[in-house]
Amino acid sequence: MKSDIEIAREVSLHKIKDVAETLGIPREEVHNYGRYIAKIPLNLINDEAIAKHNLILVTAITPTKAGVGKTTVSIGLTLGLNKIGKKAVVALREPSLGPCFGMKGGAAGGGYAQVLPMENINLHFTGDFHAITSAHNMITALLDNYLYQNRHSCDGLKEIKWKRVLDVNDRSLRNIVSGLGGSTNGIPTETGFDITPASEIMAILCLATDLEDLKRRIGDILLGYTYDDKPFTVNDLGVAGAITVLLKEAILPNLVQTTENTPAFVHGGPFANIAHGCNSVLATKMALTYGDYVITEAGFGADLGAEKFFNIKCRKAGLSPKLTVIVATAQGLKMHGGVPETKIKEANIEGLEKGFANLDKHIQNLKSFGQEVVVAFNKYATDTDEEIALLAAHCKEMGVGFAVNNAFSEGGEGATDLARLVVDTIEQQPSGPLLYTYKDSDSIRTKIEKVCRTIYGAKSVVYTTSAEKKIKQIEDTSAAEFPVCIAKTQYSFSSDPKAYGVAENFEMKVRDIVINNGAGMIVAIMGDIMRMPGLPKEPQAKNIDIINGVVEGLS
Amino acid sequence: MKSDIEIAREVSLHKIKDVAETLGIPREEVHNYGRYIAKIPLNLINDEAIAKHNLILVTAITPTKAGVGKTTVSIGLTLGLNKIGKKAVVALREPSLGPCFGMKGGAAGGGYAQVLPMENINLHFTGDFHAITSAHNMITALLDNYLYQNRHSCDGLKEIKWKRVLDVNDRSLRNIVSGLGGSTNGIPTETGFDITPASEIMAILCLATDLEDLKRRIGDILLGYTYDDKPFTVNDLGVAGAITVLLKEAILPNLVQTTENTPAFVHGGPFANIAHGCNSVLATKMALTYGDYVITEAGFGADLGAEKFFNIKCRKAGLSPKLTVIVATAQGLKMHGGVPETKIKEANIEGLEKGFANLDKHIQNLKSFGQEVVVAFNKYATDTDEEIALLAAHCKEMGVGFAVNNAFSEGGEGATDLARLVVDTIEQQPSGPLLYTYKDSDSIRTKIEKVCRTIYGAKSVVYTTSAEKKIKQIEDTSAAEFPVCIAKTQYSFSSDPKAYGVAENFEMKVRDIVINNGAGMIVAIMGDIMRMPGLPKEPQAKNIDIINGVVEGLS
Repeated sequence: MKSDIEIAREVSLHKIKDVAETLGIPREEVHNYGRYIAKIPLNLINDEAIAKHNLILVTAITPTKAGVGKTTVSIGLTLGLNKIGKKAVVALREPSLGPCFGMKGGAAGGGYAQVLPMENINLHFTGDFHAITSAHNMITALLDNYLYQNRHSCDGLKEIKWKRVLDVNDRSLRNIVSGLGGSTNGIPTETGFDITPASEIMAILCLATDLEDLKRRIGDILLGYTYDDKPFTVNDLGVAGAITVLLKEAILPNLVQTTENTPAFVHGGPFANIAHGCNSVLATKMALTYGDYVITEAGFGADLGAEKFFNIKCRKAGLSPKLTVIVATAQGLKMHGGVPETKIKEANIEGLEKGFANLDKHIQNLKSFGQEVVVAFNKYATDTDEEIALLAAHCKEMGVGFAVNNAFSEGGEGATDLARLVVDTIEQQPSGPLLYTYKDSDSIRTKIEKVCRTIYGAKSVVYTTSAEKKIKQIEDTSAAEFPVCIAKTQYSFSSDPKAYGVAENFEMKVRDIVINNGAGMIVAIMGDIMRMPGLPKEPQAKNIDIINGVVEGLS
Repeated sequence: MKSDIEIAREVSLHKIKDVAETLGIPREEVHNYGRYIAKIPLNLINDEAIAKHNLILVTAITPTKAGVGKTTVSIGLTLGLNKIGKKAVVALREPSLGPCFGMKGGAAGGGYAQVLPMENINLHFTGDFHAITSAHNMITALLDNYLYQNRHSCDGLKEIKWKRVLDVNDRSLRNIVSGLGGSTNGIPTETGFDITPASEIMAILCLATDLEDLKRRIGDILLGYTYDDKPFTVNDLGVAGAITVLLKEAILPNLVQTTENTPAFVHGGPFANIAHGCNSVLATKMALTYGDYVITEAGFGADLGAEKFFNIKCRKAGLSPKLTVIVATAQGLKMHGGVPETKIKEANIEGLEKGFANLDKHIQNLKSFGQEVVVAFNKYATDTDEEIALLAAHCKEMGVGFAVNNAFSEGGEGATDLARLVVDTIEQQPSGPLLYTYKDSDSIRTKIEKVCRTIYGAKSVVYTTSAEKKIKQIEDTSAAEFPVCIAKTQYSFSSDPKAYGVAENFEMKVRDIVINNGAGMIVAIMGDIMRMPGLPKEPQAKNIDIINGVVEGLS
């Protein structure tokens, strides 16, 4: 089969204004970024239209190194829906540039189910991530400058919570000492860089409801504590307006097209292992304004991504999906069934069957939110008919719909079964009102414990002394009402990345608590979570090239 | 008078495709970035058209804190030329985002002579600077990863020349130690960040003649030396193609419009105190393809900016201006005449007259390149008729043209005299072929000394031991043919920023030599040159805000 970028190149792209017009977006409201990419102004969002349309969440089993293809299925389902005559739009996250040059390659779908132009979407796109990087580091520079200019007074901070970000995989930046080289060059400080999707500003951009709300949230970002233990925020620096100015274009949803020229929104890109992992509320709402069916995804497995999608994004934005699609692959299930990575391409009925437990636990979790669930089997060339039939039978037993998605190889034609299943399910038995795992008024500990027990299946939750102290700090503040955002490995229900399948009887340890006061969530960190990835020995960058203006090596 | 941003807001902007059409650029070749900004593809550059058109350089007397207004005069002259019926286009540098939030405010002209939309041009614009930041730091991450992955072999480097960049004023990043936190987090390294315009990639982007040349230059960037003293380049990392991919849009010239809706190119933005300080060769050529008169500027005073414009940019790109305009202000000349900053707004004939020496030395320098020169007096509200008459008489004595520019207050109407003088001079006595200060085949020392003696007026040049050593290293390589780029303070002919007027009898010390092997120049560093600025006690950021979608506080 052709590579992703070869397929992408063969698609005859439509002008983005024409794509917008098929949705009903007036041409004059389309702000082009090049010929095939546009930003759409926020005033077009229409709550009445949103209420009439159908939101569908695509999530997945616990991911393994074999990959699951959640984005490919999200795009594939959208293509399938369009193929059967529905007005369907996909709303995805933006890829992070850093990992494209490392291990991962791109993140704009794959095969015949991509969003295009993939080489732009995967790299600078409309500059949203760069704007976030800029805004984040501008706050740091202004904060460091404030501390430097006041170094002889008592206006310092005893505890600084704000680092820097770059959209690059650079392990050398994880831990640095800045401000060296003598007294005119700042104050020596132990600090570091996270990758841009880990920035609180990314989470804020994805949750903000308009420009004013964005400014309010930026002003509320907690930067540290003063010597007399008062929180010190961006508002205290007096620069919430200036930082918002840096984000005035980044907040507008990006419109692109699929491999079949249907419209797609790609906007915002927090990671679900450290943030809420969903595309922006504004893009989802824009898509729902114009699409009868809107397909959106939640990062990594359903335990991390869907849980946060419901408990954070939907709760705060008033969204309520009609249906959740969970993506499973035979290779992934086999790994969860104990088959070693080297053997997952071989038929193995027993291993597959053992892996069902992982899927089942996710289905049970999704039902706890009041969701109707269908399973989308993302087909790979090595999958056998017997394996597919086994999973289909299992889903029937579980009382959930099942369909094969073959959009990677066939585009929309390969996802019409899935599309029909989705339409029928929504028509015949749409999900009821959302049920959350915890209440706003639950204590922080209760919220964390409810997620850990109900969703992850943990036996108990313990806290480090420092996490306990921080929870105490929050208890009497308005932050106690925030939802919790659990940062943990995406590779297991537990916090041990090697515990595949369904982990059981495990204890979870809250290592640290971070107040994302602007995003409005309490981040509970479990285990070692990497906020700045590194590059592999043979980085993808060595395969990327441009020859006669044609980009090679992105996938 | 209204503020810059108030004036900017009152201009009724034309769609950028319409602006392009007035120049003769086909609408379908215009790649919009929003409604009022576009990128123009390189294949439109036409050497035959270029040869028929007139290039005009705008430079300035030695700048003082009073400001000179070179960009404002460049735009004003363009407006004036359009006003008298000429097809004139301005080609400017892009502002750096960092300083906009610090002391300086914006850098897109002023008053009724601005390029618009100024709030975009001053901030993220088309993302060119972000692409350069990304490309630069991606090289660093790949280099650090190479060193990390090979840490147990002999493939390391003994000397690393490549740091990181960010487009922010952040003194704390000047000197850092990276790679801390144990052995999985890289190798501890003393390093630091420069501001993005100081990146060699910025210099490369501004000198590249096409995408292939860009890739060649990026591959040639010298990153360090191996243990057996061999140069180690981006080509040795094997990632020149990947880095070029990151710059494939950034290399395209940006088209915007002036306050009077005439076309303007704004592309590239190296600083002239540390790099060559000119906008991109490609934007200048694009402007020359379509404009009968193309006005471009060279950073800071003529000693720094114009010298590099001629000896580096024109030499390498085969450009040859018909005329050089030197901008002078009464306030600036008074400061050069010894009047203290607090008193320069008061009439002071004697002080002004003393300051002429600075202007005269620049005129003499410009004539050494074979340039015809006219003086543009940039009028401020406090200037008296007597002062203006005195300077006019002095210019007559010097045998150079003189005209007042009042475009800041009046737009193009305020620059028609200057425009007529420029047209007449070009028609009646255009500059002859360019004369360079040194030959390619001169030794590095000779090149440096010729610039220091002829242009700056130095008595002698001395070298640190380390500079001497590095020159020796270059002598037998092809880099010996490169032009020299002297990094020194912009505030004086000498390397002492406090020596106003015309410094005399001074010695210059070459502190360090840097090989910009990709840009193709040898940078000679004189005195303390800041490659990463800091923020002032009251940063401009505190005045920037966005209220009901309207940006305030940028100037």
